Amino acid sequence: MTLLHPTHNGDRYELTSPTAMPKAGGFLWNRKMMIQVTCRGYATAQFMQPEPAKYAYAPNLEAKTFMQPEQNYYAHHPGRFVYIKDEDDGQLFSAPYEPVRAPVDSFRFSVGKSDIAWTVEHLGIRVELTLGLPTDDVVELWTLKVVNLSGRARRVSVYPYFPIGYMSWMNQSAEYRADLGGVVASCVTPYQKVADYFKNKYFKDKTYFLCETPPHSWETVQQAFEGEGGLHAPSALRGAELARGEARYETPAAAVQYRLELDAQGEREYRFLFGPAHDDAEILAMRGKYLNPRAYADTRRDYAEYIEQGRGCLEIETPDPELDNFVNNWLARQVYYHGDVNRLTTDPQTRNYLQDNMGMSYIRPAVTRAAFLHALSQQEASGAMPDGILLAEGAELKYINQVPHTDHCVWLPVCLKAYLDETADHAMLDEIVRGADDGQGATVFERIGRAMDWLLEARDERGLSYIAQGDWCDPMNMVGYKGKGVSGWLTVATAYALNLWAEVCARRGDESRAAHFRAGAQAVNDAANQHLWDGDWYARGITDDGVTFGTKRDHEGRIWLNPQAWAILGGAANAERREKMLAEVDEQLSTPYGVAMFAPPFSAMREDVGRVTQKHPGSAENGAVYNHAAVFYIYSLYTVGDANRAYKLLRQMIPGPAEEDYLRRGQLPVFIPNYYRGAYHQYPGQAGRSSQLFNTGTASWAYRCVIEGLCGLQGDGDGLRINPRLPDGWDKMKVTRLFRGAKFVLDIRRGDVREVTVTQGGQRLPEARVTGIAPGAVHHLTVLVPT
Amino acid sequence: MTLLHPTHNGDRYELTSPTAMPKAGGFLWNRKMMIQVTCRGYATAQFMQPEPAKYAYAPNLEAKTFMQPEQNYYAHHPGRFVYIKDEDDGQLFSAPYEPVRAPVDSFRFSVGKSDIAWTVEHLGIRVELTLGLPTDDVVELWTLKVVNLSGRARRVSVYPYFPIGYMSWMNQSAEYRADLGGVVASCVTPYQKVADYFKNKYFKDKTYFLCETPPHSWETVQQAFEGEGGLHAPSALRGAELARGEARYETPAAAVQYRLELDAQGEREYRFLFGPAHDDAEILAMRGKYLNPRAYADTRRDYAEYIEQGRGCLEIETPDPELDNFVNNWLARQVYYHGDVNRLTTDPQTRNYLQDNMGMSYIRPAVTRAAFLHALSQQEASGAMPDGILLAEGAELKYINQVPHTDHCVWLPVCLKAYLDETADHAMLDEIVRGADDGQGATVFERIGRAMDWLLEARDERGLSYIAQGDWCDPMNMVGYKGKGVSGWLTVATAYALNLWAEVCARRGDESRAAHFRAGAQAVNDAANQHLWDGDWYARGITDDGVTFGTKRDHEGRIWLNPQAWAILGGAANAERREKMLAEVDEQLSTPYGVAMFAPPFSAMREDVGRVTQKHPGSAENGAVYNHAAVFYIYSLYTVGDANRAYKLLRQMIPGPAEEDYLRRGQLPVFIPNYYRGAYHQYPGQAGRSSQLFNTGTASWAYRCVIEGLCGLQGDGDGLRINPRLPDGWDKMKVTRLFRGAKFVLDIRRGDVREVTVTQGGQRLPEARVTGIAPGAVHHLTVLVPT
Repeated sequence: MTLLHPTHNGDRYELTSPTAMPKAGGFLWNRKMMIQVTCRGYATAQFMQPEPAKYAYAPNLEAKTFMQPEQNYYAHHPGRFVYIKDEDDGQLFSAPYEPVRAPVDSFRFSVGKSDIAWTVEHLGIRVELTLGLPTDDVVELWTLKVVNLSGRARRVSVYPYFPIGYMSWMNQSAEYRADLGGVVASCVTPYQKVADYFKNKYFKDKTYFLCETPPHSWETVQQAFEGEGGLHAPSALRGAELARGEARYETPAAAVQYRLELDAQGEREYRFLFGPAHDDAEILAMRGKYLNPRAYADTRRDYAEYIEQGRGCLEIETPDPELDNFVNNWLARQVYYHGDVNRLTTDPQTRNYLQDNMGMSYIRPAVTRAAFLHALSQQEASGAMPDGILLAEGAELKYINQVPHTDHCVWLPVCLKAYLDETADHAMLDEIVRGADDGQGATVFERIGRAMDWLLEARDERGLSYIAQGDWCDPMNMVGYKGKGVSGWLTVATAYALNLWAEVCARRGDESRAAHFRAGAQAVNDAANQHLWDGDWYARGITDDGVTFGTKRDHEGRIWLNPQAWAILGGAANAERREKMLAEVDEQLSTPYGVAMFAPPFSAMREDVGRVTQKHPGSAENGAVYNHAAVFYIYSLYTVGDANRAYKLLRQMIPGPAEEDYLRRGQLPVFIPNYYRGAYHQYPGQAGRSSQLFNTGTASWAYRCVIEGLCGLQGDGDGLRINPRLPDGWDKMKVTRLFRGAKFVLDIRRGDVREVTVTQGGQRLPEARVTGIAPGAVHHLTVLVPT
Repeated sequence: MTLLHPTHNGDRYELTSPTAMPKAGGFLWNRKMMIQVTCRGYATAQFMQPEPAKYAYAPNLEAKTFMQPEQNYYAHHPGRFVYIKDEDDGQLFSAPYEPVRAPVDSFRFSVGKSDIAWTVEHLGIRVELTLGLPTDDVVELWTLKVVNLSGRARRVSVYPYFPIGYMSWMNQSAEYRADLGGVVASCVTPYQKVADYFKNKYFKDKTYFLCETPPHSWETVQQAFEGEGGLHAPSALRGAELARGEARYETPAAAVQYRLELDAQGEREYRFLFGPAHDDAEILAMRGKYLNPRAYADTRRDYAEYIEQGRGCLEIETPDPELDNFVNNWLARQVYYHGDVNRLTTDPQTRNYLQDNMGMSYIRPAVTRAAFLHALSQQEASGAMPDGILLAEGAELKYINQVPHTDHCVWLPVCLKAYLDETADHAMLDEIVRGADDGQGATVFERIGRAMDWLLEARDERGLSYIAQGDWCDPMNMVGYKGKGVSGWLTVATAYALNLWAEVCARRGDESRAAHFRAGAQAVNDAANQHLWDGDWYARGITDDGVTFGTKRDHEGRIWLNPQAWAILGGAANAERREKMLAEVDEQLSTPYGVAMFAPPFSAMREDVGRVTQKHPGSAENGAVYNHAAVFYIYSLYTVGDANRAYKLLRQMIPGPAEEDYLRRGQLPVFIPNYYRGAYHQYPGQAGRSSQLFNTGTASWAYRCVIEGLCGLQGDGDGLRINPRLPDGWDKMKVTRLFRGAKFVLDIRRGDVREVTVTQGGQRLPEARVTGIAPGAVHHLTVLVPT
């Protein structure tokens, strides 16, 4: 069975079975919305008003919550379907696959960077379905093409069926509106307090399904459509026409019928819009703006341009074509998604906001700059950063952002370094940021210094960093909720942040601050080495009651990845300790699907550590391959030149290329998910399975790992340092790197050299570093790396 | 088609088609849980810990909310199903009906007062399924009997399938536990704040499905069970055995297989428990306590006794056998449900709590007494009653109870009157109730007096009652949110409450208070007549901005039922006005399915009136036949002796007896729902449809209407007044009434009398009133009513 077909130009992924990887899909987004679509036709879409909202709903009242991993699908889950009925013999199938689930003759699911499409053939009919989005409006643009392949005249009915679901317990109705040319469902977002009325008043509480070509009949009542036949064989399709029902406080659906007489080579093309609106006027406007072939073509071009703006700064050609395809086409796209729309939330966690925007350093650095200034404007008077950054008027901290975490300051210098390296925009440090805390404002440089001092302050008498109700690892909420527990990871991470900031201070010539922070880092590292080194690795923390955990004495949660990775980054670990740690990570945390966040997984609640232990072994927070943790380990490996371990792990983040790996992960390599199931030794049956969740700080760091680590192309003051790290078995690689407006084309090979040597225009450069970089310039470099 | 079979003894309702009334079902409850089951096998169950919780879940993360009307079902909705497969020819069906939906040979759904059962025959096999509950534990007791009807030996597989659904995003797993003898699914109730951990720690986060007889195989992974076949033809059933899968962070299900070889007359019986538990020990204990034939028999008897305790105080035999059956078997049961478990909420709305407990006056008056004392202990210092009464430690006001309503005090004397009439327990008025407001406490009499004075205070300069963000009619939240709007209903209702309370004061000899409240009532009624009488009916209110609404000038919301009914009860309306009002109600509000709460329904938001206008025309709050409003109109009609109108409307509350009425309502007459769809003139297609929601204050008032109104048997000081109100066409009626421990057997007939005459033992009583009532006595009375 051939499942996957990267097409000729390498920018699409295709799947030729709807059953092999049932949750596999793709996602599209624009500045206002996001849609994740599976190969079988299920879809999850959200838009902002300003909080995330839906326009196609579950069949029951769904909880409002953050995006869940491993989304479950079921017959009535929202989706976009087309039924095809042969009017002569009554045979039925549906495209893409659900709800009929007929074993079709041929199936092709095709995920592009700016569209998602299917081609399905059955009963001598080809159905082509394509989804696109515009750049700035909340609407899905669907194209449906029906082609007669049978070589004889046919009578078929084509029924697009877009379930709308349980919209609300306030109102909820639907009807076909001849004046608007489609089904319009209405509801009122439920509320009880008067004040909410005024907040909700302008919500887009209508869902429309507009048809360019008027249909022959329609049904808007879900139950009437389905009848006793069930979704796999809807009763409504038995008749010659749909019953034109109106949903009156009944679950709405949009189903329409086209009755076709196709000649032997006949075909028809249809266009549909699906989306939310406030009122009829808006629906009419959307129709006018989009629902014609010309507008479709224009929108397609505009959207492709929008996506192209996020193509990033790197193109590689290595001995690993799957890696090339992922890095060149998909990784930067995922980074761009995060940086451009902040995961479609109004209160991103501060650590996510900073990392997501760090990724924009490689795409649109002005966005990174503005995001840092915005985040710092919400700094607290103490120097602490809040748990989330509010992006919209009226936004508030929700979910996990209501739980105090102590790590947010760490991410300021850690993420800013990428921006400064990429842009050399040190002037940004002198920008004055006015915050709620500070009438006159303070410079970025001063503010980050305060954040670093806050980190130094937020330590116990041993010099270890308090964890409060969590650090970066969300669910570890019970280590320090009494106010005494400390985080091993945050301690070594603090040293990393302080060292990075000391460098910035030194570069500005502020030697006194540089010395202050360097000394702070040293003290923090000393404390870590004194209290957390367990003989072969660093412990994860010490609880409120003084119990050190993540140590050899523990049977579960014995070793954690983050303290090791960050002890390398922050300098706590000397070479000898590093060697021991790496061997233990290999031994205890490696799996065929990546490196686990910790092991062994907890089998039951460990009350002094926290909620983490409650999550299922193998889920993100209990022993899974948590890619966001793994990527820092990879990054740390590159900083110490461990090219082989780093490449192996980087590769494990991307599904494939072996077919069994795709089947196991259940995901196409169009994004890195936030986790793969772990607990490899306990539950091998589930291990490796993708969370299918593309919201993750992993993306920007994976991109940084490829740029700075694998390719070794990192900004350095006024230059670009060149230090590629080819894994064993690679003898060459080609890289095109955009950097500060110039273009670097590198031909990298193994050579008989003792250190990296760079040749430009036949001249060997004095060091492996290019300076004098001018916008518009093109540098062709030959790079030799030691064998 | 015969749909319904009230059995010989009249205490069951049966349905012989699963498709004619797809949402029709029954409900069972006990002191800790409730389950509503449809004829097709879908089920909704809740238990208290202490807030309502579930143990079988939707397939996605469901919102926590109050019980919704018109529950939508869909393929993966929670339910209890059994698949039967012929192992020789592979044919399949399921009982009760879902998920296969096979057109079975015979179907019988049977709702009893203490069990719910099905008998389904297909493929020569009879399946009998029965559900029972114990009195005090949260567990479902299922019996499954499989009988070979084919007269030849058969090999069949029987697969009970109880979907468990999406339990939680924290943990979620399931496995077959041989040691416990069944499937056990586990999860952790999601939380984010540390404090919630300690609150949730002892939750029943496990769901078990225990088998008395060990099964041959099992499956606990929902997706694996269903496979590509879908729930109507699960892939797992194609094999010889289920795959014994373990759910690891996958949606759990409980499916087990019994492989049977049945001889020509063979049969097998199985028992299963389904419910939530905290841990293995509790599961084992439940197994030991319930899972054997003896325990089933004992539990069945105990539960029937428990339900029998709620049989009420009345038995009637009238020319209307459907009314008799409903009143004698089902109405008191519904009253009992409300009074015994307070709708399974920890913060019932104060008006609901008082009315639900009013109903217990006829069943277990000690409960009513305690509830009044409890409610009054939460009275505010101002005399106001809070929006909800907290029943459990840690309970808090939720949903609509966070919105200030001004009507709660009204219900004190209105509901207490039933209790005092029924019991003559005037000593209760001298009980001292200590509240948060009052260190020394105050008597019930004093407290209710304060509540009446609060009502008198909470009026505007015209003497009309403020509405704040709502009165009894929840969604009318925008009339007075600025603090000025008034409620027409609440104004006339205040007069009713004051008059009733004045009577109580007078009976105690407290003439000064009696006069004070009588004068208050008069003033209130005068104000109503001056400002709200619209010529032919009373207006519904006056908005913050001075707009009177519910008047002839309005095209929508023109006339409202409540102000009319309560103007009769409270005395605002004189005889002439009453006649006009009744004619207008007949004209504008009558429908074949009852009297609408208002008409015409709103078609769009009217911002100065409120949320009501947003709900769908025909739903409870927008022009529906809201039974709770209708029942007060009926009650008011009885107080003025309008026996015909009252009977007609009472009768319309109960589905049937014509088959087309059943089909229209879609509900069995085992309870009165909170509403039937209205908007009869606008949406005749949906009008009459039941909400299927059995939580409603209607029940206790309907019972009171039958007792006091139709039968005319109302307590009066130390006696029982007798004043039956036979509608035209009835010439007789037999009534058995339990009253203060005595039993009254009445033979009521039309006679040539000018007023009601009562004969006891051949002696005509001086008035239509029996005194000298002694517990244990039996009074045989012959009653003549004027023709």
